[in-house]
Amino acid sequence: MAGNAIVGQSGGPTSVINSSLAGVFQACQMRGAEHVYGMQHGIEGLLSEKVCDLSQRLSSFMDIELLKRTPSSFLGSCRYKLPEPEENQEVYEKLFRILKKLDIQWFFYIGGNDSMDTIHKLSRYGKSVGSSIRFMGVPKTIDNDLMLTDHTPGYGSAAKYIGVVMKEIIRDATVYGNHFVTIVEIMGRNAGWLTAAAALARGEDCEGVDLICVPEIPFHTDRFLAKVEKMQQERKSVVIAVSEGVKLPDGRFVCELSDDQRFVDAFGHTSLTGTARYLANLVAKNLPTRTRAVELSILQRCAAHVSSRTDITEAFQVGGAAAKAAFEDVSGKMVALKRLSNDPYQCTTELVNIGDVANFEKKLPVEWINDTRTDMLPEFLAYARPLIQAELTPIYINGLTQHIVEE
Amino acid sequence: MAGNAIVGQSGGPTSVINSSLAGVFQACQMRGAEHVYGMQHGIEGLLSEKVCDLSQRLSSFMDIELLKRTPSSFLGSCRYKLPEPEENQEVYEKLFRILKKLDIQWFFYIGGNDSMDTIHKLSRYGKSVGSSIRFMGVPKTIDNDLMLTDHTPGYGSAAKYIGVVMKEIIRDATVYGNHFVTIVEIMGRNAGWLTAAAALARGEDCEGVDLICVPEIPFHTDRFLAKVEKMQQERKSVVIAVSEGVKLPDGRFVCELSDDQRFVDAFGHTSLTGTARYLANLVAKNLPTRTRAVELSILQRCAAHVSSRTDITEAFQVGGAAAKAAFEDVSGKMVALKRLSNDPYQCTTELVNIGDVANFEKKLPVEWINDTRTDMLPEFLAYARPLIQAELTPIYINGLTQHIVEE
Repeated sequence: MAGNAIVGQSGGPTSVINSSLAGVFQACQMRGAEHVYGMQHGIEGLLSEKVCDLSQRLSSFMDIELLKRTPSSFLGSCRYKLPEPEENQEVYEKLFRILKKLDIQWFFYIGGNDSMDTIHKLSRYGKSVGSSIRFMGVPKTIDNDLMLTDHTPGYGSAAKYIGVVMKEIIRDATVYGNHFVTIVEIMGRNAGWLTAAAALARGEDCEGVDLICVPEIPFHTDRFLAKVEKMQQERKSVVIAVSEGVKLPDGRFVCELSDDQRFVDAFGHTSLTGTARYLANLVAKNLPTRTRAVELSILQRCAAHVSSRTDITEAFQVGGAAAKAAFEDVSGKMVALKRLSNDPYQCTTELVNIGDVANFEKKLPVEWINDTRTDMLPEFLAYARPLIQAELTPIYINGLTQHIVEE
Repeated sequence: MAGNAIVGQSGGPTSVINSSLAGVFQACQMRGAEHVYGMQHGIEGLLSEKVCDLSQRLSSFMDIELLKRTPSSFLGSCRYKLPEPEENQEVYEKLFRILKKLDIQWFFYIGGNDSMDTIHKLSRYGKSVGSSIRFMGVPKTIDNDLMLTDHTPGYGSAAKYIGVVMKEIIRDATVYGNHFVTIVEIMGRNAGWLTAAAALARGEDCEGVDLICVPEIPFHTDRFLAKVEKMQQERKSVVIAVSEGVKLPDGRFVCELSDDQRFVDAFGHTSLTGTARYLANLVAKNLPTRTRAVELSILQRCAAHVSSRTDITEAFQVGGAAAKAAFEDVSGKMVALKRLSNDPYQCTTELVNIGDVANFEKKLPVEWINDTRTDMLPEFLAYARPLIQAELTPIYINGLTQHIVEE
């Protein structure tokens, strides 16, 4: 079957989204695509015909190795929301004209919920006009909130980063032995998967995090202060991990209580930040202690220098599995990860209907949180621990980690 | 010569302060100290006789290897300021009674300006009462602001961390290609050494930071906004590195313009934070762009998972050189690093008078900053680049970096 493939990346960056790009690229080349194109800045770039020929840019195995170690989206990203095909056909007609001009047979989109929504709409429209183009979704998100997949590529590396730096922050926080309260803000708008990963820090060489607050559990300010007061009396230092998206019982975000500026993106998501700072000020006002707020901020999604080899390998595999399916004539599906066992950890891929994934969110199971709502139970650790195993050695040149960038 | 050694750590943590502890410990053992004691929480802990026997805790080479990879102060720290010996003798009498009880002959204090002040006072008082105890200072600070030493152990690893994560942040920031402005806050109250290290990010695989603001250059809000506006029109994304301690022409810290809570420590240092957030809000209010503030926060001083092997080795060496000097009857000195050449990088140790170091601050040379006050010149890069070279592989166990902790 002759023709070309095209691949795009969308949504927030991760440390391993480029490993999925490498997986799609290598599998498409191997299966005989004449050209493998990359959309620059996702579907938004494609609408302006901003396209590059990946075969030229990724010409050596060293390029592929660097790509696996380069964080953020090599091709650039976008947060462009396609209209419903029934409501606005123009944009689809334009897109399909461009795809025809490029002789595209296989179309891949690497991203999270919103990107799966894009693939869902494109495959529906394509089917309705009898297009032969195969549309496949490749999952990616540090948030781990996609349905129908055991976990998402990107989560393991973010969880590993959080585990590593929480251990370092705990070492730092205990240094004065003065009952200091440190509050660490971790990403997660509605799902607490990333914040839960702070529980991984505990071990024979680490006291662990003292309190974990996730969006799945309503946040009561008075109970929070009571817990902190008790811990602060008992321990040399208190370290708290809190999701940016923790919510009051009335549904408002805790960070809405502060007066910072906020923005709303194309998908209607409000930017959340300032939760840790707000809580640190609250504790300092109510308890006789100094406090510190730390935001892990964007480093938790782009710190490729601490990535999980398991995660990088799986990210590569889902890319390859998407290409395999598309070349076998499958369309409108997302590749999911299916766990076979925890110990030894075994995981394979399967295909799921993209319509069952797009626009849904998978929450952290509340039964994995302890009764006092302070910590994660062993069930969570058994789930998360395999995902952070092993390392892919960064390539350091002249003292700094090396990346590959679009020219 | 019979007797015991004692070593303490003081001031803010670094990634390599424990490597200096390892250096002192091994050299003292080798030179025949019967016991090597550790002060728990520095001089403040010593005053309460909180002391441990390091020979018992560090009993294997693996312990030493883990110690070199463990961030923050293994022995705990303090920010205790000794009074002038002339003004208050009581505390000195108490300290020297405790030291006599422990049969201490050699006393080591690892720290920055304030810790050198402690050694200075102790050695002066010791001399005045005819004590035979030898007092030696071992330099440590990520801030690189100690006088009479080419650089300080701790700076190289912090600079390497900043270089590595700025590269990752720049990759992340360019992903949407929407002229977004990212402002990264880096530690440095009066000296811009750490913020200058952001200049290391630029290379064949990285655009580099677009603007660097350090405390040595007065900050003009209007000029800053004009620069950002120009860059923001010209570039896909703007990334700015700013010292927490940048100051207005009238001497006030920029972050004082915001209304956050602030604390003052025992040495009279106000906590500075919120500079990036204040500037990000300022830019968002004045220019048609979205902005983001990122604080590298405490990770820049405790991210031992990205440490410089050069730095770790030198931190170990200054510890060993301090022990050598003390056993050779030297007192009241600090070990300094003396650079012999940049390329090939060669560096040795020498002894300097502690009174010439304590309470002084070494600033970043303004002649290493370009005329437009946006970037560092090659002179700075030639100075800093050797300090970030090579890695000490972290020991990962079960997916996370392993440390050693006081039991």
